Order: sequence, then C-alpha cells, then structure tokens
Amino acid sequence: MGIINEDFMLNNKTAVQLYNDYAKNMPIIDYHCHINPQEIAEDRRFGNITEVWLEADHYKWRLIRSNAVPENEITGNADPRVKFQRFAEMLEKAIGNPMYHWTHMELHKYFGYDGILNADTAEEVWQLCNSRLKDSNMSAKGLINASNVAVIGTTDDPCDDLKWHKIIAEDKSFKTKVVPSYRPDKALNIDKPGFCEYIKNLESVCKRRIETVADIKAALATRLEFFCENGCKAADHGLDRAVYTVESEEKLNEILKRALGGEIITGPLADAYKTDILLFLAGEYSKRDVVMQIHYSVIRNANTKMYEKLGADTGFDCMSTRPCGDELIRFLDALESRGSLPKTVIYSLNPNDNAMIDTYLGAFQSTQAAGKIQHGSAWWFNDTKRGMEEQLKSLADLSLLGNFIGMLTDSRSLLSYTRHDYFRRILCSLIGEWVESGEYPDDRKALKNIIEGICYKNALEYFGFNK
Amino acid sequence: MGIINEDFMLNNKTAVQLYNDYAKNMPIIDYHCHINPQEIAEDRRFGNITEVWLEADHYKWRLIRSNAVPENEITGNADPRVKFQRFAEMLEKAIGNPMYHWTHMELHKYFGYDGILNADTAEEVWQLCNSRLKDSNMSAKGLINASNVAVIGTTDDPCDDLKWHKIIAEDKSFKTKVVPSYRPDKALNIDKPGFCEYIKNLESVCKRRIETVADIKAALATRLEFFCENGCKAADHGLDRAVYTVESEEKLNEILKRALGGEIITGPLADAYKTDILLFLAGEYSKRDVVMQIHYSVIRNANTKMYEKLGADTGFDCMSTRPCGDELIRFLDALESRGSLPKTVIYSLNPNDNAMIDTYLGAFQSTQAAGKIQHGSAWWFNDTKRGMEEQLKSLADLSLLGNFIGMLTDSRSLLSYTRHDYFRRILCSLIGEWVESGEYPDDRKALKNIIEGICYKNALEYFGFNK
Amino acid sequence: MGIINEDFMLNNKTAVQLYNDYAKNMPIIDYHCHINPQEIAEDRRFGNITEVWLEADHYKWRLIRSNAVPENEITGNADPRVKFQRFAEMLEKAIGNPMYHWTHMELHKYFGYDGILNADTAEEVWQLCNSRLKDSNMSAKGLINASNVAVIGTTDDPCDDLKWHKIIAEDKSFKTKVVPSYRPDKALNIDKPGFCEYIKNLESVCKRRIETVADIKAALATRLEFFCENGCKAADHGLDRAVYTVESEEKLNEILKRALGGEIITGPLADAYKTDILLFLAGEYSKRDVVMQIHYSVIRNANTKMYEKLGADTGFDCMSTRPCGDELIRFLDALESRGSLPKTVIYSLNPNDNAMIDTYLGAFQSTQAAGKIQHGSAWWFNDTKRGMEEQLKSLADLSLLGNFIGMLTDSRSLLSYTRHDYFRRILCSLIGEWVESGEYPDDRKALKNIIEGICYKNALEYFGFNK
Repeated sequence: MGIINEDFMLNNKTAVQLYNDYAKNMPIIDYHCHINPQEIAEDRRFGNITEVWLEADHYKWRLIRSNAVPENEITGNADPRVKFQRFAEMLEKAIGNPMYHWTHMELHKYFGYDGILNADTAEEVWQLCNSRLKDSNMSAKGLINASNVAVIGTTDDPCDDLKWHKIIAEDKSFKTKVVPSYRPDKALNIDKPGFCEYIKNLESVCKRRIETVADIKAALATRLEFFCENGCKAADHGLDRAVYTVESEEKLNEILKRALGGEIITGPLADAYKTDILLFLAGEYSKRDVVMQIHYSVIRNANTKMYEKLGADTGFDCMSTRPCGDELIRFLDALESRGSLPKTVIYSLNPNDNAMIDTYLGAFQSTQAAGKIQHGSAWWFNDTKRGMEEQLKSLADLSLLGNFIGMLTDSRSLLSYTRHDYFRRILCSLIGEWVESGEYPDDRKALKNIIEGICYKNALEYFGFNK
Repeated sequence: MGIINEDFMLNNKTAVQLYNDYAKNMPIIDYHCHINPQEIAEDRRFGNITEVWLEADHYKWRLIRSNAVPENEITGNADPRVKFQRFAEMLEKAIGNPMYHWTHMELHKYFGYDGILNADTAEEVWQLCNSRLKDSNMSAKGLINASNVAVIGTTDDPCDDLKWHKIIAEDKSFKTKVVPSYRPDKALNIDKPGFCEYIKNLESVCKRRIETVADIKAALATRLEFFCENGCKAADHGLDRAVYTVESEEKLNEILKRALGGEIITGPLADAYKTDILLFLAGEYSKRDVVMQIHYSVIRNANTKMYEKLGADTGFDCMSTRPCGDELIRFLDALESRGSLPKTVIYSLNPNDNAMIDTYLGAFQSTQAAGKIQHGSAWWFNDTKRGMEEQLKSLADLSLLGNFIGMLTDSRSLLSYTRHDYFRRILCSLIGEWVESGEYPDDRKALKNIIEGICYKNALEYFGFNK
Repeated sequence: MGIINEDFMLNNKTAVQLYNDYAKNMPIIDYHCHINPQEIAEDRRFGNITEVWLEADHYKWRLIRSNAVPENEITGNADPRVKFQRFAEMLEKAIGNPMYHWTHMELHKYFGYDGILNADTAEEVWQLCNSRLKDSNMSAKGLINASNVAVIGTTDDPCDDLKWHKIIAEDKSFKTKVVPSYRPDKALNIDKPGFCEYIKNLESVCKRRIETVADIKAALATRLEFFCENGCKAADHGLDRAVYTVESEEKLNEILKRALGGEIITGPLADAYKTDILLFLAGEYSKRDVVMQIHYSVIRNANTKMYEKLGADTGFDCMSTRPCGDELIRFLDALESRGSLPKTVIYSLNPNDNAMIDTYLGAFQSTQAAGKIQHGSAWWFNDTKRGMEEQLKSLADLSLLGNFIGMLTDSRSLLSYTRHDYFRRILCSLIGEWVESGEYPDDRKALKNIIEGICYKNALEYFGFNK
C-alpha cells in the first residue's frame, strides 16, 4: 500500500525509459546546500529519526505548527517520540505536499520502509529507523556514499576558516568533493542588527582595520581569494529584494561610519550600500570565474514574536511578491557595461517572476558558457512538483532547457538527496510527455544529451568542478 | 445531449468513488454569502426565471454586456422574456466559463432540465422554469431545504438590527441555521462618499455621540457584542488593498474630525485610520473567538459613467494586481505581537497572491485551531474550475490541505448551492488524480477524513457552529 | 522520425474533427504584424534560408546567443552557412520551445521537409531550402498566396507615405488586402533620444510648425486621416508601462518646449505628456471606428552594451512585472467618461496580468461591438503553447471566449503564417478537451460558430475588413 516504487512520479512509458537509461545513474552535484561540513568531517551519527528529521528542518516545523501542535512538541523539550508522533499525525493531512513524497522516498531509500507513515504506523517506523540508524553505513559519509554524490557545495560565511572542508579533503577514502560557497550576506546587511559586530569579526579575521567601504571590499576580496584557494566555485547572495541604487563613495563611507557606530541603516541608503558591494563582488567573481547566485524576494522572520523566541531560520519566513525585477535588470546591465558580469544563477522566491527571469537570461548571454545566465531550480517554497514543472516549462518556453544546470537540495539534511531523484523523475515525465505528444522527436541521442546534461553534466561544466 | 450527469466534472474512477462515498451527502456550510435574510424570513417566491437569475446577479450582467446587448435588456425595463433570451444567446459563447456550468447544474437540480440552454431552447426553458417556480417547494426555504444546507452565514452591516435573523430563528420547522456576519466596511471607508452619514447612523443605532476614534471603536464593539449574542461567528472586511500605516491617536482624531466635517480622506491618512480600526476590531474578534475574514485587491466601480448610472455592485468591479502583501503581513505580525490575532481567513482577488498567502499561513499558526490562519476558497473572479484547482494545489504545496475549511458561495442567489457541488467534484477529481498517479496512497480512511473535513467538518469546527 | 503531421498538436479526437472541419480552411487575418510592405510590393525573393530566417529574427538570435555562440556568427559577417549551422545546433536544445515547432512547421509547409533539423541534418536542410527558394512561387507574394491570407495589417509610422501599400493595392492579381496600422510611438516617446528629430520629421511631412501639444495633436490627426483614407482600421501603441498622469495644458506645453530644445523628459512629466496624447488619439480612433491596440510591460534594450553595438530590436528586450494595471484602468475609465473609448485590444507582456485584463474587459463593454474590449492573443514572449492556453483559459473563465478576435503573428517574417495554424491546433485541442470531458456539449453548430469566429470571422467583423 506504499507509494514509492520504481515508477514513482514517472507518468508515461517514455519517462520510465528516459529515467532508467539516462537519469537514474547520473552522479549528484548538489551545488547549493546548507549542510554543516562539520557533520561530514566528524562523520556524524544519529540516535533516532527525530534527530535526523526534526532537529533542524524548519520546513517540517511549519507544517506541524499548521496542525495546532504546541511549540514544545515541535522545537521544545518534548520527548523525541512525541515529536515524531506529531509529525506523523500531520503527514496524513499533507496530501499534495512535497513533504509527503520526500518523507516516503527517504524512508524507502535509507530505511527500506515501503509502507505509509501515519499516526498508526509511527511506532513501527520509529523502531525501524532507530534500529537502522545503528548500522555502520548510516553515518554522514555513509549516507552521502549511498547517494552517489559527486560534489557538495556548502554555504559559508567569508569569516569561516574552512577547517572542516580541509579535514574532509584530507580523507582520501571519501570520494565526494565538498567545496565551500562564499555567502557574504552579513557584510551586506547594514539594515539588520549584528552588522557592526560582523564587521569587527571580519576585521579580526583579515587582520586589518575597516573604516571605509573600500576597506570592506578589500577584506571581502581577501576572503574570496582564500575561499577560491580552497576549491570555491560559487558565491551566493540572499537578498530580501533585488536592489539597484547608486550613491557616491563619499556618501557610502558616511553611511558606513554611522553603521559602524551602531546605527541601523534602512531604505535607499541601505540599498545603495548593498548595490555598491554587490557590484564590486560580482566583478571579483567575474575575475575568478566564480558563479554568482542571487536568491531574492523573501520576507524573513515575519513573525516577530516567534523570532524573538526562536531566532532566525525557524520556519517563519515568507514569500514577497513586491516586484523588484527592474532593479535586478539594471544591476545585471551595470555589470555587463563594466565587462564584469560573472556567470549568474537567479532564483526568486516569487513564482510570478519565472517568465520575467527567463527573459532576462536571453539578454545577457555570452560565449563564456552555454547558458551563462541561468534561472535557478525552483527554490524553497517553489521546490514542489508543480513549482519544478513551472520553472522547467517557463525555461523551455523562453530559453534553452538543454543548457539548464539542474537541481540542488538547498537542504540542511543528509537525507535530502532523494530530492534529486524526485526532480529527475519529474523532468523525465515532462520530457516524456513532450515526446509522446509529438512535440519533440523520439531521438534518443538528443534526449540522452539533454537529460544527462540537466542531471549532471551541465553543472559539472558550468561550475568547473571537472577542472 | 446535456452535460450534467452523475459523473459531471469527475474525471477519474477514484474521484467518482470519493465523491459518492464521502463528499456528496455532506451538509453544506455556506459560511460567507450575500443572501438577503429577508428573502428567507419571508420565504420569498419567484414569478419567473429572469427574476431568479437576472434580477441581482452582476456576474451574469457582465457577461451579457460582453455580447453587445443594450443595458435596457440587462438591468433596464425590457421584458423579462427578452432579458432571458439575451442571457441564453450569450451562454452559447461562454464556453469554458463557470457560468455555463453553474447554469446547467441549477437547471438540472432545481428545475429538472437536462438539455442545453441556448437561443433555440430558451423558450422551452422559460416555460419549464416558470411552471416549476409555482411548485410549493420552490420558495426560499424550500430551495434551501432541497440543498441540504446546515448553516448560512449572511453578510451584515453593524447597524443592522438583525430582525430577519431573529424571525428566521423563530421558525423551528426550518432547520438551517442562519447567522449574521459582521461586516463594518462603511465604518472604515473614510475615503469614500457616505462615511459621514454612516457614522451618524452608527451614532443613532448605538445612541452615543461619536467624535473620536475611540468613540467609533466603542460603538463598533457594542454592535459586535450584539451580533455575537445573535449567533455571529465571523466578521468580514472588504478592502481595496491590504493596509498597514501607523499614526498617533491625536493625528487619527484630527483626520476623523475632518471626515466628519464632510471631507474625503485619501492616501496614507486614510490607510492609517483603517489600520487602526482594523487592529482594534481584530482584537475584539480574538477576544470573542470570532473568525476574521479579509477580502482584498479589488478595484470597485471601475467604470465611473456606469457607476453614476447604476450604482455599486452592478458588474463593473475589477481585479487589482498592485501588490500589498507586505502590508498584510505586517498587519498580521502586529496582531500576533499584541497577542490578539484571531482566527483569520485571507482571500485575495489577485490570483498571483496564492502562493504568497499560503506562505503567510505557516508563519502565524497556533494551537488555537488546526489551520488557524486559512487561505480562503478561490474568490469571485477566481471562483472557476481553474481558480479552485490553483487555490487547492497551492494550499497543498505549501500548507496542510487536510485542514482547509472549504467552499462558500459568496452569492446573492438561493440557487447557488450547486457551487458547493461543483467544488466537491473538482476537489474529488484532484485528489483522485493524486491517488491514481501514486502520489497519495489509496487509504480510504485517510481520504474520508480529508474529504469530509474539507466539505463540511473543518468549517463546522473552525467557526464553532457545532457549539 | 519528424514531428509534423496532420494531427500535430491535436491531442484528442474531437480536436482533430474540429480542426479539419472548421479551423483548417479559414482564411488568415493577420491584423498585427511587422512585415515590411516593401518586401511584398517588390515581391522579394531570398537567396538562402539564412536570409529568410536569420536576417531579422531577434527571437532566433536570442536563443542562439544562449548557446554561447559568438555574435559574429549570429548578426555579424560570418558565412550564412555557418550561421545556419549555429541555429541548427541550438535547436536540439530548444526542447519545449515554440521555436522548435515553428521551425519544423515552416520546413514542412514551405519546403516540404519532414525530418528534424539538427547539427547533423543542417546540410541537407540547407541544400533543400536553398533549392526550393529558387522556385517561382517562393517570392513574398507567392508565400502569402500559399498561406491563404485574406488581410495583412502592417505596422507603420504616421510619417510613412504608405507608398508601398498603394503599390500593393494596384496589383489586382494579388488578392490579399494589405492595410497599414497607425503606430505613433515616436511621437509619444518624449523620454527617449530621437524625439526632437521625429517631431521635425512630422512637421515636414505635415507641412506645419509644431510648437505646442495642440500642434502635435493636429499633425497626428492629419496623418491618421491619411492612414484611414488608405484602408487603416487599427492603431497600435507600444508602451513600456501603461500611464495615467494628468497635467495642465500649460505645463504640457512647457515640457514640450524643453523636449523640442533637446532635453530628455522623464518620470511623471513624460507620463503626463503621453497620457494626454493617448487620450486625444483614442478619441480620434473612436470617431473613425479605428481599433486601438495597446502593448505594454516591456523593458526595451535591457543590455546597454549590446544596444550601443546593434541598436533596437536585436533581441535584448525583456518582460517587466512592475504593475501598472491601476493606470491602465484609469485611462480606460477616462475615455469612457468622455464617451470616446474606441474598440480596444489590450496586450501585456506580463503574463501575471492575464486575469486582471480579463476583468477589465467586462467593465467597459458596449453595444458597439461584441467583445468591444478585447484581451489580445498571447504576445511575444507569451506566444507559446502554454502562453496561448493560459490566455484562452483566462479569457474563457472571465469573459466570452466565443467573441475573441484570435491570432496574429506580430512577425517580421513571411513564413510565420504557420503560427496561425499552430494557434488553431491549440485552440481546437483545448475546446476538444472541454467537449470530451463533458464541460461543453458536443453541439457542432455552436462549436462551428465559436471556432470559425475565433479563427477568422470575429476579426473580420471587429476590424471591419468586410466593409
């Protein structure tokens, strides 16, 4: 009575063939995720399934909260078994939600459970998972090995010493490449508490005084260089909105002085500071052939009361639909005019931006890479069957789907690699539909290139992980 | 050759079973509609089908106007038979429009007509309907009884004396609960003509002078209390845009003074007044466990010439796509911070807001109710097969569909209960598809809970109609 | 192994019948395109397929650029055979893109090629096409004749002397009506370089001094009159955003003076100038029963570097998602209030506006024409299978699909008439689905009216090409 089987999500015959022949066995390049490299370096093990699933996954927390469960039984001190029960009870109601599919794919792949998790089966699943977690291969590295992962791109602060990445690299028996990604959000967030402290930290890591915007740029460049020496191929920016506001250097230094004095800078002045640093960094990425990722359209920590109680990344972020595409395109154009537009991957949390982004791609391509400007895989709230289909169809309508660099997990969990499988099944179903309806020929050579490209080869080439 | 039959809109085998076993016989809770309670209290009867369908239905008027019909034959003095003919002629061209389906569902259910209404059959339908309307059970109460309606939530002004609700309640032979909903739009519309007169009316109903914002609040609270004593479980706000602008009490009193002097207040000052009253009322709802409904993103009376000729609610309203989600979320956050966020149902007329709203839900849930914050059923222009599917899929993607409180008619007509049936068929088709494609197990116990919940039980519990 | 056959894109049995019985043989009214009338008048011939396909088609250029091809092999001096090779190589990756379908439909219809164009077959296609292009019937007029085109509406500047239209009209053996459309964008673009020079040109064409806004209006009215004498039935406006800003005549004359002195006017002042001219022109269209087309939501020339290199219309335009619906509706309302709203076709490049536009239609209809206000066919970036389906479904949901005036090519190419066929197949598939799923009766009389109407008869009547 389970739902996971060989043909899960493969809704036509061609899809089954494409998936089995071309997609299934491609290695995974998880070029953007939030796995803690320490967990890999230390080859972390887990005591129970609640630890694996419910310790840090704010996707799951949100859904459980929507089922009127007390916070104590979600993020609090309640017994792990109780927390697991609340998760299982919620799951029954999550019909149509990707969490339903992910959960069962993970149970199938990593725990060999093929039933349905619900309030009644929670006990048997609890027992089974906890028992399986004792197996020697159920450690961080074991799970990664079992998932055929070629590359993991973590997400790291410029001040990070990349200690864990170095330790991982030293383990020659572990074949997966684990590389840092450069994410300097804290150096840009002049409009948020903690900016001042962060800059002090940056000063101390770089061993130089920071008094001007030029100082910050120099410090960030130094750290980027250090990241590149340690295998970094991508940077990442998380922006509430895309920005493009230009101000004089003098004015920006004045703002910075106020910020370093403890003031929170907001509005157009904050935008101007961010714009300036972003333009600078993009140029640095361009010089070093580092891919720039831009994630935008987020309302973070929307529930102030819960933010004060639990902090950030606890399941209280939302999608913003306030348009900022005009700013984004002026940013890209400014870089193109300076000759310093790097390879760029654009992700919006607002699905209404899909088609807009796909038209942006076409205006800034170059010989530097096939699909130099990319529309990132359906992100976060859009990382659903429907969201992925929409992203794929829009990209196909307006650009060259065959050049797409494909899926990433964006996840904190070592069990999320099944999402690549989920994506591949959806991709093969979509392409299979086009073939069966006569919209694309059943040319297996061409289809093999497209599918292997999107599943693995395009990302390998685009990020230069093969170099 | 008709289109209505047992399997209408049920596009898979599982859907047929789910509909027949779980959905079909659930009572209807029409928690938000615009039926005039006087029509029920007086057990209104109708002379002809034009009176039933074309007397007050601005959805139909719009469509007939789109067929180049003179206004006189729509809302004017033309013969009812001519008006009906124009409706029938239009209908042929309304392929794909929900009006096509609603019309034929109503003809089938209430008049036993299974053919197609068009220019040629208009005469036979006219005769049949008018003859059927003479039957004793074709009165307001008869139609409601025939529709298995457990609860009707009307929409009422705070100044209303609820006389008709009381009369209805006295008829013990009539089993449907008819409860008022509190809709104080006129007390908020400081930016529209009539505000001043409305406040005078409120003064006289409450028998107290209104000079300050505090006075208005007190008056509104008194009326809310009165509504609650008469069974009110829900309030409703119709906003052009969501607002969140904060001003001092002093400033607000100053605005109010100007408004009571006859001035129309617009822009940020009007927004500030509305924000203040809305925050207050939400707190009052929260105290009394009244559900707050918010309807927004409307351009009302877009055609000034026709507004001056025919007044409001005559088919000249439009959808606005100007974003106001940031204001909405700050409003919810402010209430949450004060500990006074009531159960809330959010409806946007802008379908581009679907996913955004579904992310808002997750950020403000609590133990107060399963799905305390709800994404309202596809509203008005979105109340179409496609609109409902989009709302359901988005809700499923981002929240717990199993906790959804389901359908309402939002209608002025006693024949609109078929829209619940339309919704249920679409719901069962969607869920049936998920089951048949292997995305959810064919677990009838779980499916029964989900479907009965969405069709009836969730709303019963959520609004507390069972208390 | 090709994809084009009789049933291409017809995904159900009813669709096949509807297409063959009602759609296929309808003449084409291509009421909005960018064909150069000189090419028709001179009965242009083509030396090779690169000349036909890649000389002016910036849709194709964009896609080739997305495949990392050097500009020289796209718009530069590279050998035509090399350019064709790059196109063919790109095409393999364009799975799901309408370019894939258009290309193969054109190869099938005009060149009798039924294989697949890719890197390997490029040589045989090159040879075949170039050989076919030597046939006597492969001239401009020959291609138009082969396409069953009743009417072509070109897009022309008010200063145009319509010489080529007159020459075409004199060829009595050529049956297709080729009529000008009035597109005065350059007279409105006070915010773009070249305005001043344009007004001088207008002065010289009209033989009158232009010093005030009234002078511009008079000049434009004279030219409109001249266009109407030459068969013009439609005007067209390309706007970055819809505008509605009102200013005094005095202020507008002041702006104009500055603009004529060489200053670029931007922001609200430019909007006010545009609003004023648009309101005036709409009134002139209304008087002469000329249809007003409005195309909006475009970011033109987004890549400054490439704009400076290649100029406008070279594949660097993008979609804007910044909302301007509120301005659009105030513009329509202002015209309605003055009694001077002409028949209007609204096209937004932003697909998020679909439903909004469809609600606007219903608020401004009149007895002047069935569907007086129209939602234009899916435009430019939306001119895809998915884009067309979305436009059709949204229109059906919110208005009367049966009154839709249907497809246009918007193309510079004489081979694009296959896009009408593409549209008709998609239309018949959609309607066929509704019929087969029981959402509309299988009433062939009604279906014939709807399909023949949308494919040909509605546009004939609406524009008055039959008068």
